[in-house]
Amino acid sequence: MLETYAERYQRDLVERVIPFWLQHSLDRVHGGYFTCLARDGRVYDPRKYVWLQGRAVWMFSRLYNELEPRQEFLDAATLGVEFLRRHARDAQGRVYFSLSQDGTPHAFQRKPYAAVFYQMGLFEYARASGDQGCLDESVDVFWRIVEWIRHPELLDRPLLAGQTPMSNLANLLVVGMMAFDLAQHFADPRYREVVRETIAGVARHYDAERRIFREHVALDGRDLMALPEGRLFNPGHSIETAWIMLHLLTLFPNAAHTRLALDALAGSLELGWDEQFGGILYFIDLAGYPTLQLEATMKLWWPHAEAIYALVLAATLTGEQRWVDWLERVDAYAYAHFVDPQYGEWFGYCNRQGDLALSSKGGNYKGFFHVPRALLFSLQAIERVNTP
Amino acid sequence: MLETYAERYQRDLVERVIPFWLQHSLDRVHGGYFTCLARDGRVYDPRKYVWLQGRAVWMFSRLYNELEPRQEFLDAATLGVEFLRRHARDAQGRVYFSLSQDGTPHAFQRKPYAAVFYQMGLFEYARASGDQGCLDESVDVFWRIVEWIRHPELLDRPLLAGQTPMSNLANLLVVGMMAFDLAQHFADPRYREVVRETIAGVARHYDAERRIFREHVALDGRDLMALPEGRLFNPGHSIETAWIMLHLLTLFPNAAHTRLALDALAGSLELGWDEQFGGILYFIDLAGYPTLQLEATMKLWWPHAEAIYALVLAATLTGEQRWVDWLERVDAYAYAHFVDPQYGEWFGYCNRQGDLALSSKGGNYKGFFHVPRALLFSLQAIERVNTP
Repeated sequence: MLETYAERYQRDLVERVIPFWLQHSLDRVHGGYFTCLARDGRVYDPRKYVWLQGRAVWMFSRLYNELEPRQEFLDAATLGVEFLRRHARDAQGRVYFSLSQDGTPHAFQRKPYAAVFYQMGLFEYARASGDQGCLDESVDVFWRIVEWIRHPELLDRPLLAGQTPMSNLANLLVVGMMAFDLAQHFADPRYREVVRETIAGVARHYDAERRIFREHVALDGRDLMALPEGRLFNPGHSIETAWIMLHLLTLFPNAAHTRLALDALAGSLELGWDEQFGGILYFIDLAGYPTLQLEATMKLWWPHAEAIYALVLAATLTGEQRWVDWLERVDAYAYAHFVDPQYGEWFGYCNRQGDLALSSKGGNYKGFFHVPRALLFSLQAIERVNTP
Repeated sequence: MLETYAERYQRDLVERVIPFWLQHSLDRVHGGYFTCLARDGRVYDPRKYVWLQGRAVWMFSRLYNELEPRQEFLDAATLGVEFLRRHARDAQGRVYFSLSQDGTPHAFQRKPYAAVFYQMGLFEYARASGDQGCLDESVDVFWRIVEWIRHPELLDRPLLAGQTPMSNLANLLVVGMMAFDLAQHFADPRYREVVRETIAGVARHYDAERRIFREHVALDGRDLMALPEGRLFNPGHSIETAWIMLHLLTLFPNAAHTRLALDALAGSLELGWDEQFGGILYFIDLAGYPTLQLEATMKLWWPHAEAIYALVLAATLTGEQRWVDWLERVDAYAYAHFVDPQYGEWFGYCNRQGDLALSSKGGNYKGFFHVPRALLFSLQAIERVNTP
């Protein structure tokens, strides 16, 4: 059963997704990647968005490391790494959000994520190329990110007195994912320790009544239902968290945590699936209030990509049919609404009813990342169960 | 013909819009206003968003000054002014973006708009109450805003080398509107001078080929069509700009500028109206590329409110039937999609097809402002032509 999916995902990845980005995304003049690509691949904004530069470096490097050691992948990664290392950091070592086409600083975001994807790109590239400078810098940036998250005033966003101290799921996860990779490369026990703390931290985001991960929980366990961010449920993110948990747990196997991650996957799909129009909603207020996010009821590509991989992983780990049933549903929605058979890659943005709201293939937040990662990881998971 | 509109707008303003906010928005415990209100007025986020605190102070004061000197309006304005003056500014005099319910600082935005609406609220309140402290502070804040816009590094957003220097329509307009009010109150010629500069600046945003105002134009006249912000057309904002221009021109009457504003109103409606599903689109890329804004094809309440007033104003100024025809179209769309006959006030957010995307009446960017302002201004304009 899963083999059918594997064949299709393999074909899509190799024939329709990777070629789209290799053909349209590489800036051979200035280095780095164009990510603002129209349906047919035309560049509609030449800027270099650093989240997506780092993510593409990571993706090309991971493809080189784990799909096939094609020189083309390594060259594409090198094009991004060299551009990033030349341009992406300011005098204090902080990472810009965006650069002009030639690498001149354009904007700074008071968030750590540009640095996170910079770090992930460098580390994966170091694995691919053996470049010691990249490896060293990825370690240095990792520890800076830990500090930036602990002390957001270092990124010009001091914690103000009216902010309820809360744990942010995204911050937890990115640190955990970086540490997970580092822990497998270095003997330094601190990385394993960060992974262990991440698992415990993510478990605190679990809402046992609803079987989902919440985006924000109070550090002191206080109820946050009076605040929109306390009631915020991002089904795609909760689903992504479930599979990331399952990855992290390979370092600290634990049946209770595994069950929790699988329960969260089931619960997130049950609560996040739009029974009326199909597809996974983007944001939900757990008390049924309107959200502050205008795009709440839109259907975005990445929750569907994340769900496909999470379901493949759950199916291969447990052998349970219920995951295959959900996979069939999510996969059918994604292929009916996001996949573009004509030009390759996926569309990104539909309205609630499933009509395309934007025809772009990439933008300042959509690049060469969620789709190829989900397809590659799904292939690999299916291959693992088929290779005794 | 317009009298029918005036009667309906009067009734809606007095019976359905003002009562909704008076009943649900006032925080009699901590002061200030709740703005995150569900369809029926329930508060779903108790925070105080400063843009909307300042806007509501302005609106209640303006109603007191120009609709009817009801003590209830002045009291409601006082509730906001006292809260703002106690809590909204930091030690450097900068204005926070949001405060917790009791006024503790919550977040800071690297933009001048919280200060703009703070200033506008204080000034209009000073007109209503005669409070000299508010008047003095509004003057001080005005000049600070001029500096903050000129030197964005003062708001922690330095101009980086990769940014193309450009004129931002929103910044121009807010300064012009504040100066317009100040110029009518103070003899100081500098305010008139700012208004004059604003008119010239707005005229530089006019795209004569398309008959619209663009959001960004290069300071050196360079073509910005290679950048998404250079191609960005925000029909609602362009329409709002048209009527603001007509207001500013009362201080500097000029037939060519008046024609330009009216042409921009017509052009913005022609290009911004969605022929397929009706209503005014939120963002449009002038070269037909996808936008970076996910909400581009949504229909928002405020462009429709702005268009109603702009069309009433154009109709009363010119007596031309074409404006009444457009008013009929926009008014019909707004009343079919945004007006809530059950609980009062307007909904804010529909998808392109006109289905409600969010059921809220207010949020962190929707408060007591666009709807009552459009209704009040429309009434007043119709009354002016009917009062020889």
